[in-house]
Amino acid sequence: MDHPVITALPPTLAWKGDEHGVLLLLDQRRLPHQRLVLRIETASAVVDAIRTLAVRGAPAIGVAAAYGLVLAVSRAEPTPGTLLEVAREQAALLAAARPTAVNLQWALDRCLRVLQAEPTLPRLLAEARAIHADDQASCRSIGEAGRALVPDGGTVLTHCNTGQLATAGEGTALAVLFAAWRAGTRFRVLADETRPLLQGARLTALELAAAGIPVDVLCDGAAAGLIARGEVQMVIVGADRIAQNGDFANKVGTYGLALAAAAHGVPFYVAAPRSTFDVRLMDGSAIPIEERDATEVLEVAGQSQAPEGVGARNPAFDVTPARLVTGFVTDGGVLRPPFAGPIKALFAPSR
Amino acid sequence: MDHPVITALPPTLAWKGDEHGVLLLLDQRRLPHQRLVLRIETASAVVDAIRTLAVRGAPAIGVAAAYGLVLAVSRAEPTPGTLLEVAREQAALLAAARPTAVNLQWALDRCLRVLQAEPTLPRLLAEARAIHADDQASCRSIGEAGRALVPDGGTVLTHCNTGQLATAGEGTALAVLFAAWRAGTRFRVLADETRPLLQGARLTALELAAAGIPVDVLCDGAAAGLIARGEVQMVIVGADRIAQNGDFANKVGTYGLALAAAAHGVPFYVAAPRSTFDVRLMDGSAIPIEERDATEVLEVAGQSQAPEGVGARNPAFDVTPARLVTGFVTDGGVLRPPFAGPIKALFAPSR
Repeated sequence: MDHPVITALPPTLAWKGDEHGVLLLLDQRRLPHQRLVLRIETASAVVDAIRTLAVRGAPAIGVAAAYGLVLAVSRAEPTPGTLLEVAREQAALLAAARPTAVNLQWALDRCLRVLQAEPTLPRLLAEARAIHADDQASCRSIGEAGRALVPDGGTVLTHCNTGQLATAGEGTALAVLFAAWRAGTRFRVLADETRPLLQGARLTALELAAAGIPVDVLCDGAAAGLIARGEVQMVIVGADRIAQNGDFANKVGTYGLALAAAAHGVPFYVAAPRSTFDVRLMDGSAIPIEERDATEVLEVAGQSQAPEGVGARNPAFDVTPARLVTGFVTDGGVLRPPFAGPIKALFAPSR
Repeated sequence: MDHPVITALPPTLAWKGDEHGVLLLLDQRRLPHQRLVLRIETASAVVDAIRTLAVRGAPAIGVAAAYGLVLAVSRAEPTPGTLLEVAREQAALLAAARPTAVNLQWALDRCLRVLQAEPTLPRLLAEARAIHADDQASCRSIGEAGRALVPDGGTVLTHCNTGQLATAGEGTALAVLFAAWRAGTRFRVLADETRPLLQGARLTALELAAAGIPVDVLCDGAAAGLIARGEVQMVIVGADRIAQNGDFANKVGTYGLALAAAAHGVPFYVAAPRSTFDVRLMDGSAIPIEERDATEVLEVAGQSQAPEGVGARNPAFDVTPARLVTGFVTDGGVLRPPFAGPIKALFAPSR
């Protein structure tokens, strides 16, 4: 069966050319109204694209960072003896673009590891391409692992965007919904608009509508009341970093949603690939939470809403404790609580 | 001490002239950037102003409806024999403007009751003026009753707008904050922006800043995470209708906020005058919840955000169960759980 959403939009990211090629990024700041593909030629342009959310979504920024490292090394033209050093310096700059999603650091670490064994540009590009392909495969695995969880005839609520625009493949939480829909399950989706940058209204609604899945947007604050009224049978979200005990960071607003789901016994699932787990962290308290610029809150659609001189708080993420999670839908299957064991098993060498 | 916020803005509503006078409404849709006073000459214009939120806030729309009834009767010029009938018909139209806040029906019922005894236009205007004055007095009583609850040196989080723009006086929840500030308590306020219509960012921030109270705006979805991080010591909100057991309806997003406050042991107060209690209702399940137009969600600042053809859900209110409420701050004092007894006592004839 076709995936109309995938043919309808340019790829979220694509590498064009050989190891001296360029990165093509679909500019997500302009969606849904305009489809502009950015041609990115330097690592600092990748940093800028990540910081300003031209590309966003934990898996997608991991892939973008890997290609960013290719651009950095390609443009620096280091000698074989200095390539690794150049790559390490540039990886640090790329990693600092956004602090919360661990996929960024994960992808860069993976690239640096292969460069230690073979410090060449072709090897680096091969690894970036492998990270890209692995993410596509992870999305497929997540979709297959989770599709049977979607309640036929029910309503699924989601937050932010976790589809093809957030990954190199079909998505994380949205991949589960796309796979269920293709398998014949019929359901409706409520998409939290996801202030401040409206990824739900702009991106999730676009992807679901393009796939023919019925979707209604709602203000983030409306979710708890609709859950209380019995209008939601499943909540599924993505993640930006998951600690070894199952606490996880995701787009701000997720924690409140998890509290509401738990209060009314609605299953609350988190879909993410292995690259989003950070097993170095015991729990969620150590996850760094990015605080972004106040203007994202104070200006809506480019227009100032609040009176002059008033400030804003703008944490981009929050942390949800593992006890509120029904299950993690991963590229290694569905993990059930208590999560420490299944998460450890996900990274066991035998796999 | 002066109330700079009150001198800084035109009155939320004012009656000008005798019983053939007009109602002046500060157009809240244009705040904070423009101060436009609407001259309202007919009951249907009052209905329109209430429906479109030119005037909003449960107590304020009660007062506006009472004056709307004066306009209706004044313009219809009924005979003494038909005045009560005309008033009843027009009251039904005014009451239907918005279904959730009970203050609207309460004010109209109060007017109709006095007209039964004395069906004259001057008596009706006197009652509308009394409702107006009583609301101002209620605001003062609420402020005095609640001001000692505000934690010195703490941060108070609030939702929507509950100040002079929501009432005929100084407000409900914001009256508590204004009174505490005047008494020398020092604190900061986090104001939920309150999507879809941004009453927090536009109106609450304006009133607090004008009063010299430090205020930061935040996206509604960010509140739970900041509460979890220990950044909030008190939550205080208003109400649109309170049932006899203490369940209450308020601006959508309140229920999720109450869940987060309860999860972290942060006191959660609701400030409201007697006119917001609906003791005919056993609990919150019978409170009608207005669903407003989808465009309020899909368009932000007049610009379409979601892709064409996508729908939206837009419940304007949600219901919070009494068990999540630390106390009601009323014009009859602070009520503590279990609420049924104190609420009943609030309406005992002896008071």
